[in-house]
Formats: sequence, C-alpha cells, structure tokens
Amino acid sequence: MRAVGVLGGMGPAATLDFMAKVLVADSAAREQDKIRLIVDCNPGILDRNAAMRGEGPSPGPALAEMARGLVGAGAEVLVIACNTAHAWIADIAAAATVPVLSMIEAACEAIAADHPQAEHIGLLAGEGCLDAGLYQDAFAARGWRPVIPPPNLQKDFTTALYAVKAGSLGEAQKAAFIACGAATWAAGAQIVVAGCTEVPLLLTAADLPVALVDPTEILARRAVAFARGE
Amino acid sequence: MRAVGVLGGMGPAATLDFMAKVLVADSAAREQDKIRLIVDCNPGILDRNAAMRGEGPSPGPALAEMARGLVGAGAEVLVIACNTAHAWIADIAAAATVPVLSMIEAACEAIAADHPQAEHIGLLAGEGCLDAGLYQDAFAARGWRPVIPPPNLQKDFTTALYAVKAGSLGEAQKAAFIACGAATWAAGAQIVVAGCTEVPLLLTAADLPVALVDPTEILARRAVAFARGE
Repeated sequence: MRAVGVLGGMGPAATLDFMAKVLVADSAAREQDKIRLIVDCNPGILDRNAAMRGEGPSPGPALAEMARGLVGAGAEVLVIACNTAHAWIADIAAAATVPVLSMIEAACEAIAADHPQAEHIGLLAGEGCLDAGLYQDAFAARGWRPVIPPPNLQKDFTTALYAVKAGSLGEAQKAAFIACGAATWAAGAQIVVAGCTEVPLLLTAADLPVALVDPTEILARRAVAFARGE
Repeated sequence: MRAVGVLGGMGPAATLDFMAKVLVADSAAREQDKIRLIVDCNPGILDRNAAMRGEGPSPGPALAEMARGLVGAGAEVLVIACNTAHAWIADIAAAATVPVLSMIEAACEAIAADHPQAEHIGLLAGEGCLDAGLYQDAFAARGWRPVIPPPNLQKDFTTALYAVKAGSLGEAQKAAFIACGAATWAAGAQIVVAGCTEVPLLLTAADLPVALVDPTEILARRAVAFARGE
C-alpha cells in the first residue's frame, strides 16, 4: 500500500474536504488497513490567482519544496488539493521522485466514463485556474467545450471564493456558486464541474438542474485506488 | 509562525476532527496568514490498546519514525492526535528535535483554569489509555480523582470505540459513550473528560448533565497559540 502525499492548505478547509472524501472512499473495515495520507496543509503558499495575473511572485518554488518534503516524509505518490495550483504541476513533478496524480485529468477521465454524451461542460473555477486554461485545455483535447459564467457572475464567484477561503461558508457564498452553475446550464451546459476545491464545500448536486462533477471526490477515489495498486 | 506537525491517523476521523478544530481556533482572516499543519495520517500504526495489554508489538518505533519524518518535512512543534499514543511520548520526544505538546497536560491545564472546583473527574478513555494511567497520573499530580465507568459499560465503550475507528459513527456508539459519561456523573464526577479522540466525534456537551472537556479542542487551541508564539 502506497502512502499518498497531499499538497494542501490551498485553502485548508478544502484539504479537510479532500481528506474526508478519502476516508469515505477507503472501504477498509479495520483502522490499520486504511491508507496513509501525509498532508502538508500549508495556507502560506502564495496566492495562485495573483501569480497567474502577473501581480505576485510564483508559488512554484514553494510547491516544489513541499513536494520534496512530502516525499522525504514517506509519500509514494502526490496529489494537489487545489485546482489552480495544477498550473505549477511541472515544477512539482520535477521536484518529486514519485508519480503526481492530476485532479484535472482524473476529473476528465471520470466525465468521459460517467457522462459520455456531454459536450458542453459548465466550468466553475477561480480566475487563476481559468487564466491558466487548465480545464479548457483538457476539455479541448477531448472535443468538449467549456461553458464559463458571464463576467458579472464570475466576479461574484471570485468574491465568494476568497470569503470561503477566509472561513465564511454562508448562504451568500453558496448563492454565488449556484448562480454561476445555473448560468452555465442556461447557456447550454449538460454537466457542471466544480473546478475549484472551495466550491463543493457549499455546492451540492441537489443545488443544480444538471449533474455536478466534484473533482475533489474523484481525486480522492483515484488516490485510494492508486494507493492500493488498483 | 511555527509549522505544527501532527502524528495522526489513530484513527483518521479523529485526526480530521483535530484539524477542523485547529481551523476553528485559527482566527486569521486571510488564507495566507493561517497556520501550517504537516500531518502524518497513518492508520497503520500498530494497535495501542493491544500493545498496552502486552498482546502486540510496541508502536513506539513507528511513532518515533513518524516524528522524524514530520520534523524533516518542516514541523517545528509536534502534537499527537491520539490520547493512548501518549504512552509512547518519550519515544516521540527522543526522536524529535522540536517540542512535543502533550494533549493530556494541555487538557489538565484547561481543567484547572476552567473548572477550579472540580475534584472528581469522569474519564472516558480506551483500555490502553487507562492501563497506561495517562490521565490518572496527571489527575493525581493535581489532587484530582478519576471516575471510571463500571466494567460492563467500559466494555461497551471499547466495542463502540473500535466501531467508530472502523467508520461506524452511529446511534449505538453514541449511546455507549453517553452511558459511560452518565455513569461517571452518577458516581460523583463533576466534569467529564473525553479522554479518547473518537469520543468527541459523537458525544457533545448537550449529551451530558455535566460539563464535557474535549482534549482535542484544547490541544487545537494550544497548538494554534504555540504556532503563533503566544
């Protein structure tokens, strides 16, 4: 069984959500048979959105350092519990001597398997994630089209995102996420991807008229399977 | 700000509970100002209760190895998110080159501050924790008397404890914890200590006629204060 290293803290509540989803995905009945997670929950990592806008230094070196620390502590595979931080996955992979599982790729593989008819995919993501084109490129490689919320709702999304990161998980934030999801549906999205790990902290499948894809949950299942060599 | 290393996974849900309580205790408004946790959530650590009964090998060497790994990954102070594992705190402290905060001591300091009138203290703890005398010794040093549930209820407690560790967080387990707490109150306890990190996953202050002391929450607050140099 391989120990899973988690680059986390971006933000910390999202990392807890990932760990809780690993626990749900890990069906071992006995404590001693459950998989080992080594988690660097490091909220100090520089703002990914600001860096992507060119308004702040790159978090790449710090992410690479985290990867080295996790491998040194025993991690045999790495995951990143933040979509936007995948913009620096090359820095992380270069620093790690173990495989790095991509949440973006895992989500797209799950979409292809579970929603084979989907072509227009709603994308709820932070500015940095959108600017980096992480999901858009992965969708394009499969012939899918991303459906992004209109600018005014995307602005509200960003405000809600930072409020959630600061610890405000309330109705206002949830309403902003729902409005963005509903807008992509109204614009033709057949499914909606929670492309930011703060989104599934508030938004659930019951909140939207179409299926909600939760990459955090998909990555958790993928990590458990990988850890068990499945 | 010092990074806090967490020896966890004993069990994993209790480690998540500790991390969630750190998040609540950490009042920083901005993600980048929140404290860093480096967590080894390692459910594979050998059964502490069995080792304490002399029916299994010691988890001491593995705990010491975890401590070294956490310090190597950047931890500047260590905590142990399992009461019973404190029986091996000397092994952990010997392996670490950083301070180790004791959950048992933190809980007793909080009791002395918050419940100065308490002399008879209900103790809900696993067999290994009781056999090691961890809380009993700390109570005795302060002139307090532990009140332990009667053997039949303690047996139900152990059964419930292992069920929770395996992922069954239900009414039956909660009822076993309540029965033990109520029995200590009936035997004269003025407050009750949740001396096993699985207990506060189900038992809340509203469930007992006397105050419930949650060492997980106390350790979380202590770790945040220590990380900030307070």
